[in-house]
Amino acid sequence: MHCLAHLINPKLLLTSLFAVLLSCSVHAAHPNLVITDNDVQSMRQAIDVQGRFSSAYHGLKKQVDQQIAQPITVPIPKDGGGGYTHERHKKNYQLMYNAGIIYQLSQDKQYAHFVRDMLLQYAEMYPELDVHPKRKVKSQNPGKLFWQSLNEAVWLVYTIQAYDLIHDALSASEVEQIEQQLLRPFALFLSEGQPSTFNKVHNHGTWATAGVGMAGYVLNEPEWVEKALYDLDKSGKGGFLKQLDELFSPQGYYNEGPYYQRYALMPFVTFGKAINNNEPQRNIFEYRDGVLLKAIDTTIQLSYNGLFFPINDAIKSKGIDTIELVHGVTVAYGLTGDPGYLDIAQKQDQIILSGDGLKVAQALDKNAAQPYQFKSVAFGDGNDGKQGALVIMRSQVGGDQALLFKPAGQGLGHGHFDKLTWQYYDHGNEIVSDYGAARFLNVEAKYGGRYLPENGSYAKQTVAHNTVVVDEISHFDGNVDLGNANAPTLNYFETNQYGTVASGEIHTAYQGVELKRMLALVNLPELESTIALDVFDIRADRQHQLDLPLHYQGQLIETNFALMANTKQLSALGEKNGYQHLWLKGQGKPEQELAKVSWLNDNGRFYTQTSLVNGNETFLFTQIGANDPNFNLRNEQGFIRRVANKKHHQFISVLEPHGEYNPSKEYTLDASSKVTGIEYSEQGDLALIRLVIADREFLIAINQLPDAESLQSRTFNYQNKTLTLNGRLAVYVLNNQ
Amino acid sequence: MHCLAHLINPKLLLTSLFAVLLSCSVHAAHPNLVITDNDVQSMRQAIDVQGRFSSAYHGLKKQVDQQIAQPITVPIPKDGGGGYTHERHKKNYQLMYNAGIIYQLSQDKQYAHFVRDMLLQYAEMYPELDVHPKRKVKSQNPGKLFWQSLNEAVWLVYTIQAYDLIHDALSASEVEQIEQQLLRPFALFLSEGQPSTFNKVHNHGTWATAGVGMAGYVLNEPEWVEKALYDLDKSGKGGFLKQLDELFSPQGYYNEGPYYQRYALMPFVTFGKAINNNEPQRNIFEYRDGVLLKAIDTTIQLSYNGLFFPINDAIKSKGIDTIELVHGVTVAYGLTGDPGYLDIAQKQDQIILSGDGLKVAQALDKNAAQPYQFKSVAFGDGNDGKQGALVIMRSQVGGDQALLFKPAGQGLGHGHFDKLTWQYYDHGNEIVSDYGAARFLNVEAKYGGRYLPENGSYAKQTVAHNTVVVDEISHFDGNVDLGNANAPTLNYFETNQYGTVASGEIHTAYQGVELKRMLALVNLPELESTIALDVFDIRADRQHQLDLPLHYQGQLIETNFALMANTKQLSALGEKNGYQHLWLKGQGKPEQELAKVSWLNDNGRFYTQTSLVNGNETFLFTQIGANDPNFNLRNEQGFIRRVANKKHHQFISVLEPHGEYNPSKEYTLDASSKVTGIEYSEQGDLALIRLVIADREFLIAINQLPDAESLQSRTFNYQNKTLTLNGRLAVYVLNNQ
Repeated sequence: MHCLAHLINPKLLLTSLFAVLLSCSVHAAHPNLVITDNDVQSMRQAIDVQGRFSSAYHGLKKQVDQQIAQPITVPIPKDGGGGYTHERHKKNYQLMYNAGIIYQLSQDKQYAHFVRDMLLQYAEMYPELDVHPKRKVKSQNPGKLFWQSLNEAVWLVYTIQAYDLIHDALSASEVEQIEQQLLRPFALFLSEGQPSTFNKVHNHGTWATAGVGMAGYVLNEPEWVEKALYDLDKSGKGGFLKQLDELFSPQGYYNEGPYYQRYALMPFVTFGKAINNNEPQRNIFEYRDGVLLKAIDTTIQLSYNGLFFPINDAIKSKGIDTIELVHGVTVAYGLTGDPGYLDIAQKQDQIILSGDGLKVAQALDKNAAQPYQFKSVAFGDGNDGKQGALVIMRSQVGGDQALLFKPAGQGLGHGHFDKLTWQYYDHGNEIVSDYGAARFLNVEAKYGGRYLPENGSYAKQTVAHNTVVVDEISHFDGNVDLGNANAPTLNYFETNQYGTVASGEIHTAYQGVELKRMLALVNLPELESTIALDVFDIRADRQHQLDLPLHYQGQLIETNFALMANTKQLSALGEKNGYQHLWLKGQGKPEQELAKVSWLNDNGRFYTQTSLVNGNETFLFTQIGANDPNFNLRNEQGFIRRVANKKHHQFISVLEPHGEYNPSKEYTLDASSKVTGIEYSEQGDLALIRLVIADREFLIAINQLPDAESLQSRTFNYQNKTLTLNGRLAVYVLNNQ
Repeated sequence: MHCLAHLINPKLLLTSLFAVLLSCSVHAAHPNLVITDNDVQSMRQAIDVQGRFSSAYHGLKKQVDQQIAQPITVPIPKDGGGGYTHERHKKNYQLMYNAGIIYQLSQDKQYAHFVRDMLLQYAEMYPELDVHPKRKVKSQNPGKLFWQSLNEAVWLVYTIQAYDLIHDALSASEVEQIEQQLLRPFALFLSEGQPSTFNKVHNHGTWATAGVGMAGYVLNEPEWVEKALYDLDKSGKGGFLKQLDELFSPQGYYNEGPYYQRYALMPFVTFGKAINNNEPQRNIFEYRDGVLLKAIDTTIQLSYNGLFFPINDAIKSKGIDTIELVHGVTVAYGLTGDPGYLDIAQKQDQIILSGDGLKVAQALDKNAAQPYQFKSVAFGDGNDGKQGALVIMRSQVGGDQALLFKPAGQGLGHGHFDKLTWQYYDHGNEIVSDYGAARFLNVEAKYGGRYLPENGSYAKQTVAHNTVVVDEISHFDGNVDLGNANAPTLNYFETNQYGTVASGEIHTAYQGVELKRMLALVNLPELESTIALDVFDIRADRQHQLDLPLHYQGQLIETNFALMANTKQLSALGEKNGYQHLWLKGQGKPEQELAKVSWLNDNGRFYTQTSLVNGNETFLFTQIGANDPNFNLRNEQGFIRRVANKKHHQFISVLEPHGEYNPSKEYTLDASSKVTGIEYSEQGDLALIRLVIADREFLIAINQLPDAESLQSRTFNYQNKTLTLNGRLAVYVLNNQ
């Protein structure tokens, strides 16, 4: 009974009891992890029918045929990440998995024999191996094939599936040899052998538990499955379920951001599917209100025009076509049959050779895809969903737009010091951008392909983002632990016919300074356009210098104030915290009420930020690239609005997309901004923004009442008119020409 | 007989005599310019058949329906270019033309009546008009509707076609009124009224002769046609045929470059087609060995990945889908039936509503397109084709590549001081680039949308290109007249299985300095790659500083020598001739034999220029943007190889595309250059380049014998091997691993 001792929730107790009883009595059928014997029957039929599945099969077969024509190479582990033996063992597990699939589908034993022979070579070598010579003692548990146990666990995730796929082609003695000399000690090394990783509620733990748990199914070791699910001591303090509890928010948001979320997804989806096939009664996909499916869906939602929003350490070209999300979408479609996933699968343009992959392929062959619905949504951050939020606002008025607002948690070691930052996208492109990670992945000449020094000295710093920097110091003074311990608050979020609005604040990024920002993506259907409204409110207990950078993508077109350019010589803007990487290209001090900066993006549209400055702000124009001896940084443009010696300041602005530059067809439309007036006022909790644009007069009203529960229809007076506001956001046409 | 007096060529005399006799007896059928009555019959049938033609018709009809629902506006001319009355009269001629087409196809008289009513309004206004108030007395002849006569001529080209299309819907008195009060005085004003433009061998003259000539056909004035073809005095010194003689090279190259060529094409193609329909016996499309068709074809050849090569004053986004070339390709297909033109038409994705347009649409509907063949070719420059050449080299080995080499003429006022420059393209992108024009077309905030001051101070200057600058002074010291008077020489050009090679030289760009360059795009099928070989030879009568810039598109990845970056402060590289616009980002003095600079392009490939420097050259790394107070310039990267105090120097280098950066799929291949050896030697006229790349050893041999006539198979010794060279270029594998 000791294995049930940790179960304290009576409902869970019954379910798990049932599960354990069932799993003990199960005969190990093969294959039965992600792919089942049933799947294989349908897949075999499909490969002879012209279509996407058959093409994918023949494509992979051709590739495997080429690879198995080469001699098997299982080198003694020697090199660290990127080195020869490291890369070879990575290739081997992928190849064994692929050959296993081809064996099951073609029923041609040569593929099984190839996998068998490679496994036997591993079985011969493995018992002799000590921990890897390139291990790093301090930071991580070592592997034996690989320098870090993460890769070791990934090896097992693939290899146990490959073994499962070819099991029926093995003799009893081969089974004995491979299981006893390789798979069992391998799984034990990754579980009992390194509890600190196996029990850790962290992506590395997910890979380890997924590998060991799947080995439990294949080798008929239900105890291993239990330990994978509930921690080595089955206390539930660690393990796969705890990871599902802790690593995702209730809506399925992973707090390192989408770049790492899609990576983390892979072992969750793989093991989840294996659990479901072996023990459907565990209802793993319903666990925590279906958090696994939500995590897949959220990853899709966190993209624009096929690419993930590049928050935190993110390489910008990563998008929905990454292999991890292809697996995720395949499983999600298999479980839900939602034709919106087919839209994404179509864009991914890769078919997985699995039972779910077959369903996707056949549905796509029948043109069953429906448009996937991208939504305006606030993803609560943290495992309770209450540690701030990542907010996405979308609009289709005047083109496909997205606004990302980040009153979200730090996101661990890969997080950036960018509380309350934003990004804006229009007509397919980044317009107000985030630098992402400073890294050239796997490019040896660029710092070995690792994160560049400039990732720390620039990309993570606050000034590299579109949010307030106080006294040229980054949020939390650049302290990750402090950042992880202090999340912002999402004050409210609402999306309705008028657009989407959200507010967030944080009082811990700087001592004695309250940062509060309200952003709205407002529809103006009268103009077939939107505007992005930004009110950034800073209150401090003493005077500070406040900087609000805006990093824009494009060519500066005009400013409506004198810009004194540094034409002869450029110097760095500052000494540290990212400022040392910015050349000061010029500056201006607009004396008027409204200050405009316009730029032209590669998408052929113009963008103007109109700021309500009342002569109070200085504009510093910057280019990234100072103190960059190895030309590691992209030389992108920005401007910083600055005020000095302020205890309180509001940065108020409107971003307006406009016009079209079409040199190919030789026309240019509306190259100039049409915003001629912005007035900001408050009536209690009501924020009122009067906007004059294209000779029309609009009033944007936002109810900022903190308590959502008491939010109700509200009547107020403006310019001798009585207006009614339902919900948080409305737009009134004051003077419709 | 006076109208034949100018004909001195007896062959021409007979042809023209025949033509005049015929044209005198012709009944004016309508329509009969670009579109004939016969065309209309087939077009009417086609609009009811589903397909591209019908779609194009219904698309245009919808647009015209919206426009003719508005009141007719024919304002008194008042504004200059870009102003209201200017734009309105431009819209009017396009609208009349479109409505005329829709009338012919729909046979719905409301469209004819719309055109009639607008013409009557013009007829009422025109007799009262003086020359335009915004005329510029010095530079150009004025119009009446427009400030310059160019626009006036374009108005007539469209309007005379519109009139021709609706002629049969007019009463005799309407014909009388429109012809007497508008079209006749209009045509006379553009011909007799301004001989200096009408007779000018220049694009403005082409528009004027096209308009007046077509009016001659429609109004049954054969004399006008004669004058349009042969000059007002019918001497043949000016006129359309002289323009065909002078403005194009024998191969159909227009010496301002493709950006202006496609613009110039429009009146040539339009009037050419009208001549052919009215007087086929003139064989206008066979004139000068078919130069008109060659001009259309050459315009296509002068593109890469859909965009024109941006030489001289060119806006980079212009490409083969510009409306002028859509008309050109349509006519070319109509005349030749060559299915390669359908490939281009498919990419243009626009159907012209004409007889030829119908042929294109029907052929595309039948999927009859064949791949258009882009060639390696040297387009001789100048009307005799002997004033240098514009050279295009192409290869498909390892991907779609093009290399442009420019030992071409100055190209008049829009030409750049860039003798012997080059550009290189690979996998769809610019790799070694030309700035093109500094201009934001029609963007009022950017210097009224005109050429920016930086077009002169930077974009035209030699340092903005990829060719040698002597003593920081531009070619011809920036004097356009001197440039126009002195073209380079094309020494040779050859394309064969080994690749393409060309050599050019010029002795007049600087006094006492001979510039000679040999460029080759060399196929290395053994490596599934190419390399671009560059040998730039400078000989002078006294010592000079020699700079060879290379403007690259991408992010610097590495150099194999120490690069001392200016990390704290940037200064401009020089004071004038474009140098004042370059920030000096850093420099290095490679001490070794081979100096490498590698960059990563957005297409995900790496490029390394390996220069044979033997410790003799300094590398200056630059970024465009200094002395640019209005942020008008794009901040692009480059490096300049510099030697000082030299009477003779050879800049020798190899450009090598390599590898792939794929962060989406998380792999990077071959990020480092594989060139490990370059040796250059000569045996008499033979240039021998030994290249060690990817551990293989190649010998590239080039026969530089000036006299092509005496070029024959040649045997030579290298490394104790006897090798034979047929033609100019060969590659020998010395050591194939």
